[in-house]
Amino acid sequence: MFPLPEPMRLALDAARRAGEEGEVPVGAVIVRHGQVVSVAANAPRRLHDPTAHAEIQAIRAAAEKLGRERLEECDLWVTLEPCAMCAGAIAHARIARLYYAASDPKGGAVEHGPRFFGQPTCHHRPEIYAGIGEAEGAALLRSFFAARR
Amino acid sequence: MFPLPEPMRLALDAARRAGEEGEVPVGAVIVRHGQVVSVAANAPRRLHDPTAHAEIQAIRAAAEKLGRERLEECDLWVTLEPCAMCAGAIAHARIARLYYAASDPKGGAVEHGPRFFGQPTCHHRPEIYAGIGEAEGAALLRSFFAARR
Repeated sequence: MFPLPEPMRLALDAARRAGEEGEVPVGAVIVRHGQVVSVAANAPRRLHDPTAHAEIQAIRAAAEKLGRERLEECDLWVTLEPCAMCAGAIAHARIARLYYAASDPKGGAVEHGPRFFGQPTCHHRPEIYAGIGEAEGAALLRSFFAARR
Repeated sequence: MFPLPEPMRLALDAARRAGEEGEVPVGAVIVRHGQVVSVAANAPRRLHDPTAHAEIQAIRAAAEKLGRERLEECDLWVTLEPCAMCAGAIAHARIARLYYAASDPKGGAVEHGPRFFGQPTCHHRPEIYAGIGEAEGAALLRSFFAARR
């Protein structure tokens, strides 16, 4: 096994903590020029906010921290393939590179369903790298849902 | 001309105010059992938040007010066809009915681009009614962009 890149390790840690609190375990990290800008996890139940996916939380925190609407030069690392909502937010934020771990045939919108970044109406397409940390990201989700059956 | 339904009139008012503050003029209103739960407008510039579209703001405010993650029995009225981010949020929130005014061939994701609610991976599809207030919603956007050219 190769060691995971630090941002994906942080995203997986955030996902694990979210799972322990009863949220679907997904984590996200935003990095700019090699520095971590934000770390966030899925939190719709705790926050009573259906938009509080890990990616949205990380994007909002980073934009607030940097004091600007767009996150050019920022990379997003997330433990699961983004859904349509999050893919749309990634485009609006002008994220430069998207790294995601596990793919999500049920709700993913990058390589599944709407395949958002391939649509002619998509205004911004990040560079996309899938599969880094895939086994770890998928295992977290599997054990979370297995424990709830 | 028929008078516009009250929620769309409120959404158009919110859009107009946003435009006067330099935001792309889009407004949204959430109604539950005939009562207005939230009124919001597009605010990404003011809030330094690329996710702060009118629909997201209205959904977040309504979910916070009602103290729950899902907005079943709630209707969303918005002055422009939702983008992929907002369509995804509408599905996550389990909005019952979506009413939108102007269609958006450039960024809309309901009748354009990803056509999100028609995707087999879409978990929830609201009833959808388009075109109520279309002329007013489109005129606000046209004059906003014309003034900036």
